[in-house]
Amino acid sequence: MASASEFDLIGRYLAGRGASRDDVLLGVGDDAAVLAGDQRPLLVALDTLVEGVHFPADLPAAWVGYRALAVNLSDIAAMGGEPCWALLGLTLPEADEAWVAAFADGLDGLARRHSVALAGGDVTRGPLSISVQIAGHANGPVLRRDGAAIGDRLWVSGRPGEAMAGLAAWQDPATRHQPQWQGLQRAFVAPRPRVALGRALVGIASAAIDVSDGLVADAGHIARRSGVAIALRAADCTGSARLHRWQGEAAARRRMLAGGDDYELCFTAPPAADAAVRAAARASRTPVRAIGRVQAGEGVWLDGESLTGKACGYRHFTR
Amino acid sequence: MASASEFDLIGRYLAGRGASRDDVLLGVGDDAAVLAGDQRPLLVALDTLVEGVHFPADLPAAWVGYRALAVNLSDIAAMGGEPCWALLGLTLPEADEAWVAAFADGLDGLARRHSVALAGGDVTRGPLSISVQIAGHANGPVLRRDGAAIGDRLWVSGRPGEAMAGLAAWQDPATRHQPQWQGLQRAFVAPRPRVALGRALVGIASAAIDVSDGLVADAGHIARRSGVAIALRAADCTGSARLHRWQGEAAARRRMLAGGDDYELCFTAPPAADAAVRAAARASRTPVRAIGRVQAGEGVWLDGESLTGKACGYRHFTR
Repeated sequence: MASASEFDLIGRYLAGRGASRDDVLLGVGDDAAVLAGDQRPLLVALDTLVEGVHFPADLPAAWVGYRALAVNLSDIAAMGGEPCWALLGLTLPEADEAWVAAFADGLDGLARRHSVALAGGDVTRGPLSISVQIAGHANGPVLRRDGAAIGDRLWVSGRPGEAMAGLAAWQDPATRHQPQWQGLQRAFVAPRPRVALGRALVGIASAAIDVSDGLVADAGHIARRSGVAIALRAADCTGSARLHRWQGEAAARRRMLAGGDDYELCFTAPPAADAAVRAAARASRTPVRAIGRVQAGEGVWLDGESLTGKACGYRHFTR
Repeated sequence: MASASEFDLIGRYLAGRGASRDDVLLGVGDDAAVLAGDQRPLLVALDTLVEGVHFPADLPAAWVGYRALAVNLSDIAAMGGEPCWALLGLTLPEADEAWVAAFADGLDGLARRHSVALAGGDVTRGPLSISVQIAGHANGPVLRRDGAAIGDRLWVSGRPGEAMAGLAAWQDPATRHQPQWQGLQRAFVAPRPRVALGRALVGIASAAIDVSDGLVADAGHIARRSGVAIALRAADCTGSARLHRWQGEAAARRRMLAGGDDYELCFTAPPAADAAVRAAARASRTPVRAIGRVQAGEGVWLDGESLTGKACGYRHFTR
């Protein structure tokens, strides 16, 4: 059994990681971190990743570190916010220095790319899990889930569905090491949080959410919170082109609608804002496409067929 | 295997818990919570509690909830801050509604007592662990660990050592249900975070830490960060009176110095501030006593004998 002090030593691998920021008045090493006050609203979120539930047990440590921060950045992106600081709670079964060093590298690279400081955290013994708490500023109105209005268009960024197809390719020994599947696998192991798109959509989008449970499930959250229905157009939901080519139309559409773990943004905006949405996408170098409309009613529909209650949504991994 | 939606349902037991605060602009239910901006510095901390490591597996759920928040409030207390908001990451092996309801009750009561809002969080499947992130304001200078100066007195609040004695009494079937041991057990299961004392010490104490690892270990953190030695006076370290009476002098002193999990405040202040320290203690209705002095050198000493490197510090539970 590792002693507490071994875990303290392990914690040193995390010192100095993330971006340096002048607004971190006191960082790692005291009872709490001290951040500079600011009149802008503060956005805060916390997500926990459990081995075997939120990522496969054999995912390399660097990707675990990347992913733990990415899913939290995605929450700030979905609010249109500017991420600034993260706190880390790392629970490890043993004091494995090589694992922690790789984990810290993966987290560090993404944190620096987004100018996020690692302001504090702790390392404890237990079954592998990672809690990351993120905080940032709102620059203007936030993108809530409850603002979708009848007549709005529904948009989605990127290629939802590729992450779950990538996970399947990762888990299948026949495809895991084949070069043609690496791009898909990367969609799962290294999702790109859409922070720039989220910020560009402030004042344009009427509602937004990030796609973690699956497109239909998450569009359903917007519908329920906004008191509306969302009607998807099947012709616009054909799924990723390469998935379509490799696995056929039905599989590509199913992955797109029900895949999960995409960390793309799903958002609504009035048709009058079409040009502004496309400009925001160009400015943030993020592909977006319109896939449906907001209507009176409830639930999520595909060409008139209700998808509510169907097996569209995130499934925990089996071990 | 529970589905994600069962865990979403479980999450509803956490809705509406904690204090209501006007500065929570958007609470549970979106991608992130939105808090009102403020020019005062922001204090942030995160602690994870793992079953069998940070609390015994048979600890009732209400006390697990209480404890998860208490250890975080204690971090804010040790900075002299005003706790305001908490985020919760709850990882559960199964969707046990009764357990979660009791857990939420325990957390809720303590949160309301300290006017802390539960601004967000999530519930996931996995081995039982709880991450709580807390944020609050600094009203004036914060109590850091690195401010102890030679000549300062070392103070401690409450009766450190009783928590570990209480845990032992809890774990021993011979004492667990005996009324005379309930007070000690309560010191372990329901530590009282010293928020009022911490706030009252702002501008008075030169350094502070909360006692989680054990008094010697935590005083050692102040010593190391401040570049000084701490000399404890054995006559002032006799330990809790009831422990002394029940278990003898040696056990009482050992518990006091090495116990851990007390969540008392250990702090330094110049002798000229003695009256101010006592006034802060009275105002916050918290007992304090002087137990040593800050000297040139390094490490922690007891009547001239070095305690550094001795088995004084927190031990993880064995399962």
